[in-house]
Formats: sequence, C-alpha cells, structure tokens
Amino acid sequence: MATIKDVARLAGVSVATVSRVINHSPKASETSRQAVFSAMEALQYHPNANARALAQQSTETLGLVVGDVSDPFFGAMVKAVDEIAGQTGNFLLIGNGYHNEEKERQAIEQLMRHRCAALVVHAKKIPDDELAKLMQQMPGMVLINRSLPDWQQRCIALDDRYGAWLATRHLIQQGHSQIAWISSTHTISDAEERLQGYYDALREHNLPCNDRLVAFGEPDEVGGEQAMTELLGRGKNFTAVACYNDSMAAGALAVLSDNGIRVPEEMSLIGFDDVLVSRYVRPRLTTVRYPIVTMAQQAAQLALALANNQPLPEVTNTFSPTLVRRHSVSAPG
Amino acid sequence: MATIKDVARLAGVSVATVSRVINHSPKASETSRQAVFSAMEALQYHPNANARALAQQSTETLGLVVGDVSDPFFGAMVKAVDEIAGQTGNFLLIGNGYHNEEKERQAIEQLMRHRCAALVVHAKKIPDDELAKLMQQMPGMVLINRSLPDWQQRCIALDDRYGAWLATRHLIQQGHSQIAWISSTHTISDAEERLQGYYDALREHNLPCNDRLVAFGEPDEVGGEQAMTELLGRGKNFTAVACYNDSMAAGALAVLSDNGIRVPEEMSLIGFDDVLVSRYVRPRLTTVRYPIVTMAQQAAQLALALANNQPLPEVTNTFSPTLVRRHSVSAPG
Repeated sequence: MATIKDVARLAGVSVATVSRVINHSPKASETSRQAVFSAMEALQYHPNANARALAQQSTETLGLVVGDVSDPFFGAMVKAVDEIAGQTGNFLLIGNGYHNEEKERQAIEQLMRHRCAALVVHAKKIPDDELAKLMQQMPGMVLINRSLPDWQQRCIALDDRYGAWLATRHLIQQGHSQIAWISSTHTISDAEERLQGYYDALREHNLPCNDRLVAFGEPDEVGGEQAMTELLGRGKNFTAVACYNDSMAAGALAVLSDNGIRVPEEMSLIGFDDVLVSRYVRPRLTTVRYPIVTMAQQAAQLALALANNQPLPEVTNTFSPTLVRRHSVSAPG
Repeated sequence: MATIKDVARLAGVSVATVSRVINHSPKASETSRQAVFSAMEALQYHPNANARALAQQSTETLGLVVGDVSDPFFGAMVKAVDEIAGQTGNFLLIGNGYHNEEKERQAIEQLMRHRCAALVVHAKKIPDDELAKLMQQMPGMVLINRSLPDWQQRCIALDDRYGAWLATRHLIQQGHSQIAWISSTHTISDAEERLQGYYDALREHNLPCNDRLVAFGEPDEVGGEQAMTELLGRGKNFTAVACYNDSMAAGALAVLSDNGIRVPEEMSLIGFDDVLVSRYVRPRLTTVRYPIVTMAQQAAQLALALANNQPLPEVTNTFSPTLVRRHSVSAPG
C-alpha cells in the first residue's frame, strides 16, 4: 500500500506538507494541496486514520458496547446508534460484552484504547464503583439500560419494575388470578426488577406469590420453551403467563401450541420489549414496549455532545414502558 | 486523561522509553518496564491504540462489513467473526453497508482508514471491477457471500441457485405441481440466483413457469406477509410456496394462519437460511440450511492469515446448502 512518503515524492513536496494537507491545516498552500490530492489519487493512498487521530488528538469513532449483537434487541440498539453516527459523520465501533464482567471490561478498554471519545455502554455486570471510575475518566461515556448512582445525568435507563407491573396488572384486570412468570436466568437488574414488578402487582391485588408459578430460562426462544415446559410439568394451575421478554414469549407460545393449549382462549400470554417477533407470531403478542430506538439515539447524541463539549441535548434519563395490546390476552376461559 | 508525557515524568524515564515499553521493544530494561507500568497504573493511562498501530504499522483490529447488523442473518455472521477475533486477540470493527452501493463503499473506506489489515466484506452492490481494485490494494480483504471473478480464492460464497433448486425439487417430490415463489425485491445476486434455481427445478420436471406464481417483498417478515397476501389475492391456485428466506416464510406463515389456511395440510411452505425463527414458528419450518457460521469463521481466519502473511487455512470457497426437513411441508391435501 502507498505510504505518505510516496505521496510526498510524487507531489514534489515534503512529508510535513502532505500531513498538513491531510489534516486540513491552513498553512498548506492551494498549489501543494492540489499536488498532494492528485498524488493521493494516483497512488490510491488512504490517509491513515490513526495518524490523523493522533495529530488532532481527536477521533472520528463513536464506540458502542452491547450485550450480544446477534440478539434482536441489541440489533435494534446498534442500528439506532449507527444512524446517529452516520448523521454526524462518525464511524461506529462495536464491542460485545456477552453479559460477562470480564468481556464487558475488555470491550470498554478496547474502545478507549481506540480513542472513542464518545462511548455508549450497555454493561450490566461491571460493579458500580468500577463503572463510576470509568465515567470519571471518560467525559464522553454514557450508560444505556443502567442507572448508576451519582451519574444519572449520563445514564439512559428504563423503569423495568414498572413495565412488569403494567404487564401483570393488565392480566389481573382481565380477570386472571393464577398468573405465572417466566424469568431470565441472567443475574442482572433487568431480571430482578421485572420479577419484583410482577410481585408488586400481585401483592397490590392481594394475590398470593407462588414460587411454583415462576420458572427461569435463558432470555431467548429456547429458554422460553424450556421455562414453559417446566411450568406445564408442575401442573397447569394457572391461566396466564407474563414473560421476561418477547423472545421467551415466542418460545412459550410454541410449546403451548405443541400441547394444543389455545392462546388466548385457554392461556393468556404477555411479552416484554416489543421487538419484531411480537408482531408476526400468531396470535400477535400483547407486550410491553421498550423504546430502545429512542433511548439509543438519545444516548448517542448525549455521548457525542459530551465528547465534543457541545451544548447537551434534552434527554430522558428514565423512560417509562407502555402497554401494547394485541391478541394474546383475554379473560380466563 | 493522562498522556504519555505524564507517564514518562512519573516513571522518571524518557517518552521514548515509555513508547518502547508499550510496544514491547527488547531495548527497554526490566527496571524501566516496571517503572513505566506502575506509572501507567497510577495514572490510569491507556496506551493509545492509534499510536501503537502507527509505531508498529500493524493493527489489532479485524474489520467486518455486513448488510445490516439488525438482520438476524448478519447477527449470526457478526457473532461468528467476533469469536475468531476474540480467539486471535483481535478487536472487531463493524460497518453497515445497508445494501446500498455508496454506503458499502464508505464502510470499506472507513475500515481501511482505520488500518484494518484483515477485512471480511459482505458487499453486493459495488461493481466487480471496483471491488477487484480494492482486493488488489488490501491483501487481507476477503469477500463473503460473493464470488468475484479472478479472486475466487479470497471469496467464500454459497451456491444459492442450487439451494433454491433443492427447496423446489423437495416440494415437487412431495407431489406438488403448482408451486409459488416468494422473492426478495433486493436486486442482488442472491435474489436472482434463488429465483433461477426455482425455475431450474420446474423446467427439469416439465412444470410451467407462471409469473403469477411469483411475488416480491422486502426480505423480512413484513415483506413475506405482503408477498403472501399478494399471491392469495391473485387466487389460491397453488398448493406450495418456496420463500427467499426464513423471515419471509415466517411472515407468509402468519398470513396463512390469519386466513385459516392450515400448513402443511392445505399449503406447504419452505424457507431458506435456517435462522433461529425457522425453529420456533409453528409448524417448524422445513428450510434450506445456509452454513453462515462456518462460512464467516473461515472468512475471518483467511483474512487474518492473509493480513499477517501466515500459512493459509483450508477453506471452502463455495459452500453447498442442505435441506432441513421439519414440519411445514407435506403432500398436497
């Protein structure tokens, strides 16, 4: 590949001049500018982003840490952040934390070393105090889906507990009193908060909290199939199921269908997140909307503004989920 | 944030020494190595990847261009490439081409400027000749899901035409003679090849090719719903439908269910790709397996070996799809 020296030689100028041109320095004359650009063209020389970043001590990259890009929930998050990056002329760098403390640490570390001045981080496993240190070091770091004490203004989170309460209360309002909960095995606040929201709604309506009506699985279709199978195995003494997310609800729906249990006639089912799957399973899933696109866009805009010392955009630090009524919930048969 | 100068000052050594330590130069003494590391620790100094990449004229990043990371097919590709990156101590940089020529160009350009010596590229819109030039410039660039003339050894592709032929022939073997095809509106080789494979199988069995049995949509659930609706609107004069991919098949299945048309009793349905959705819709989709994980892993290993002048791994340049029999196909009712 051509080097900056080749360009200087062909353009008949010094390497310093080429560097000035590449870095848009006013010191470079129009003549040398043209000579350098045509030489770059002829040699198909690509200015080295590393060199430029170093020269300007600035960056063109926006960093994003997600749990697992192959999960549709994070796919939507990546796409939303990438849109903002594109609009602002930034390039997106993505790291996967895979819901693992060490991997989350590595991903953030790597993005920092790649000089991502603006960083949107989804990390649920790193302890608060360590995360607070990182926030201090990185003025352009914003947390998504986590509310860190003393750093709320740089956190964009969802009220998970309220969302699960909404879902459970909706089932209760339809007349259900035996309501199961399919939970995630991941030991993260989302799972704990949503389970608490389910208990909140039951207690509020003086309904017993029965451990035999709570089953756990990985937060995906397969985990939902396993949890639903576990619940049915314990005896079908419930008329409705609220799920940790839509993927698990889709898996649960598949198991109910395999067992000839009609939804919603014989069993009501409600999801969480409102990702695409909720719209094309049949019946369409009643679910709780997680406004991930808006949240991710606001997080990206906030991170970029902080990193570039620009006036901060108006953002919502704690979003409220809303109920989306479709066709998987009805009164008990 | 601390600079290399701060580290040198605290460690009581020169900046050059700090740089030597960071870049693992043998010239750095053990004493200065320890002094520098403890200073870096104390100052929470993160060695600048840009500076190191520049110093070594090498890189720690593996670049990947996909169509759209929020599409489950590409999600699986990203995860597979990220696994190889992790195993080899590389960091993954991702760009989205969004099935758009200019955006594909920008993504590749950006990754090159970020000095991704190893690059796995999924680009369907950039013309052959331009792509060939890029392959020449970038010895570590490998194409996935595209077979570029004269560059086959650095391409990892799937025989799409054979896959669609397999799917259609399977329906014919079950006794179907009126077979519809749900195609993608994207003007890429995948769509054209798969449609040709469908026609191949029909001709081979002396079945008429009827344009009224071919409908188009975006290659996702919504597109599948629209195409299926279009086909039913033209009159239900077919007993089986083969689809461009599983997402479209899931959408088509939803429309059939909404219209009380039982699958497979009244209508057989077959997908393509074998992504997760095919396993949890009901009935489970019979489909054609696209070995995307293996293909993506081989592409990443090949790109890294080429970029680092290491012995090349054994790779398959053209993969063959296989039939996955589940429960959405039967003999005509």
